[in-house]
Amino acid sequence: MTAPLHEGRPPATGRALSDTQQGMRRRNLARVMHAVSARGPLSRAAVSSHIGLTRAAVSTLVDELIRWGLLEELGPERPGRVGRPGSALAVSARGPAGVGAEIGVDHLAVCAVDLRGTVRARAVRQGANRGRAPQPVIEELTALVRRVLADADREGLWPAGLAVAVPGLVARDGRTVVRAPNLDWNDTDLGPLLPGGLPVTVDNEANYGALAELWLGADTPRDFLHVSAEIGIGAAVVVDGQVLRGTRGFAGELGHVPVHPDGPACPCGGRGCLEQYAGEEAVLRAAGLEPHEDLVGLLAARAEEGDEAVRRALRDAGAALGIALTGAVNLLDPETVVLGGALAGLSPWLLPSLSDELTGRTAGPACPVSVSGLGPEGPLLGAAHSVVRAVLDDPAVVGERP
Amino acid sequence: MTAPLHEGRPPATGRALSDTQQGMRRRNLARVMHAVSARGPLSRAAVSSHIGLTRAAVSTLVDELIRWGLLEELGPERPGRVGRPGSALAVSARGPAGVGAEIGVDHLAVCAVDLRGTVRARAVRQGANRGRAPQPVIEELTALVRRVLADADREGLWPAGLAVAVPGLVARDGRTVVRAPNLDWNDTDLGPLLPGGLPVTVDNEANYGALAELWLGADTPRDFLHVSAEIGIGAAVVVDGQVLRGTRGFAGELGHVPVHPDGPACPCGGRGCLEQYAGEEAVLRAAGLEPHEDLVGLLAARAEEGDEAVRRALRDAGAALGIALTGAVNLLDPETVVLGGALAGLSPWLLPSLSDELTGRTAGPACPVSVSGLGPEGPLLGAAHSVVRAVLDDPAVVGERP
Repeated sequence: MTAPLHEGRPPATGRALSDTQQGMRRRNLARVMHAVSARGPLSRAAVSSHIGLTRAAVSTLVDELIRWGLLEELGPERPGRVGRPGSALAVSARGPAGVGAEIGVDHLAVCAVDLRGTVRARAVRQGANRGRAPQPVIEELTALVRRVLADADREGLWPAGLAVAVPGLVARDGRTVVRAPNLDWNDTDLGPLLPGGLPVTVDNEANYGALAELWLGADTPRDFLHVSAEIGIGAAVVVDGQVLRGTRGFAGELGHVPVHPDGPACPCGGRGCLEQYAGEEAVLRAAGLEPHEDLVGLLAARAEEGDEAVRRALRDAGAALGIALTGAVNLLDPETVVLGGALAGLSPWLLPSLSDELTGRTAGPACPVSVSGLGPEGPLLGAAHSVVRAVLDDPAVVGERP
Repeated sequence: MTAPLHEGRPPATGRALSDTQQGMRRRNLARVMHAVSARGPLSRAAVSSHIGLTRAAVSTLVDELIRWGLLEELGPERPGRVGRPGSALAVSARGPAGVGAEIGVDHLAVCAVDLRGTVRARAVRQGANRGRAPQPVIEELTALVRRVLADADREGLWPAGLAVAVPGLVARDGRTVVRAPNLDWNDTDLGPLLPGGLPVTVDNEANYGALAELWLGADTPRDFLHVSAEIGIGAAVVVDGQVLRGTRGFAGELGHVPVHPDGPACPCGGRGCLEQYAGEEAVLRAAGLEPHEDLVGLLAARAEEGDEAVRRALRDAGAALGIALTGAVNLLDPETVVLGGALAGLSPWLLPSLSDELTGRTAGPACPVSVSGLGPEGPLLGAAHSVVRAVLDDPAVVGERP
């Protein structure tokens, strides 16, 4: 499973620059990419005036970025004029793409996003992964990745990297799943299983969900707490636009915050953890329902119909979330809490009791709670966009990759 | 109360440097200060080799720092030799000092710390401040500051700034106490009350306690959670050597994390907050004791004597701390938890039940808990050292102050 997915492209011409000059050049390449990415098609002159470098310096950088396939020229702005001056530059819709993948408890998904942020290819496989060994799951995931890469290749895109979202704790090495209780994976180094040939990073799905919210959400602040739930409940603490990772990379385990310390035992070793009240399975149990392929859809449908047991179960889950979030808000003082993942689809029934607890337990103005517009897509999009962001932040890494 | 405490010194000679050159010069002045501060007496040549600037550049910077009173020459290293070359430089034991002040529920304290980190003057006044208006409290505090400054002045020290630790939430403006429930101060701008003539910063006592631990503690990591208790229970989250402040400056409110959500009402508006189980007054109540001037001393003495009610009260307080810390550790994944403040003196009776909860509720290796060696002095020392650090980090600010 380590056969390369992608052979790479010919290396760019090396140049004899000092380390400082190289660093400066890389930063300037990034500034050009970000200027064009943020402000849409721009002429070289406009780039020059936005980033405060000379026209000549910008032209050299732009030529390099075009050669690497990261920028493209849209052609002369006013047809009939001759030469380059009026030609607008855009971030390339061909060239490098970010590939995101998600290993869910009940599904696998892969997508490719171009440098403009558009999803250009996508593949999903429904099916329970709980209790399966990592190897067959990763083999299936890799098949999906190959399918997405083949589709992307037909559109002139090649993978700049692969980012994989998993429902568990990931070590700071970015490849070892230390504990994914709802997959039953422990201390699993995914490195040797994941496809070779391109940079791969593994991270917690709540972290990628939070980054998607930060990059793609409407008016998301730079300090917020992102809550994400599938079977488990994860969270990501975003401080000044960065995910707080913790010493071992385990920060954000909201699902194991004690809510009722004498409550039911939790597989984590604790008692009365939030997950025992607000995890999907706990809610199903409380509602008296059997396991189901589309838990969220079922709960939403029943709640919509007015099923009182389901509504009560969701109300209680919301209250438990409100209690755990009161603690988190007191510790972190975020600007806002964003509910993402599967939770987002159940928010009409969760939010009232959640807000009652959070507001009732706070003397001052309570922290506002909003619902992610990305829904369950967040982690997958966050993973793909993390690769795209890395390219914008340091274009030379893909441009000069051997 | 706004009469200046200090008239300042004559301004340094201005120099015509560009912003970039000024920025570079300031950074280099800081590098020289930090090199001499960290490595003890150093010759100019040694400073030059440590920070990688030419001997000539270092000499110019050193001359400036000597003129500002931030460095001093200890004289020729080998008597009999002529001239400067061998003269060792040390951080000045005269010159600027950091002045720290603490407004406690039961005391006021002020100290002056020189640039070498030595406490050179100190004044304390015992007496309850709860329910007193801010103005008379600040007037008493200012009298203590004047006494400390007079003592410091006799030793050739002048105040570079005043940092005030308060037991409450402080807005990010560094002067407004938004809520100090155990003083009964709300939305109090201390700015107009505090003495004029030198820069003043107000911050939460747990934040200063954490900084003291970071700067003065033995082997303190750069990611930890610092817990501090007097009547209230505060905490500071330190991430990569920085205190996490939160959107409004309110992060670290561990005392109001719900422990038993149906427990007793808390003045904060919540129910069953940690402070209702582990705050000093809650422990006194649980132990069946009357209010007392030295609560911690009394509790420690009774526990030492084997008073079962006191021991049980401390055991229960430790368990409540362990439950609240389980949530905090799950959210933040700190490298360690440090117990500081008054808690530190009660740790023999708090730690066993605290650790039982924290370990028992965590599947993986539990987060280690240690006890601060600074005890109740932490916040006062942290405040004074924050001023000293600011001088080392940007010596030109005091050197060029008008």
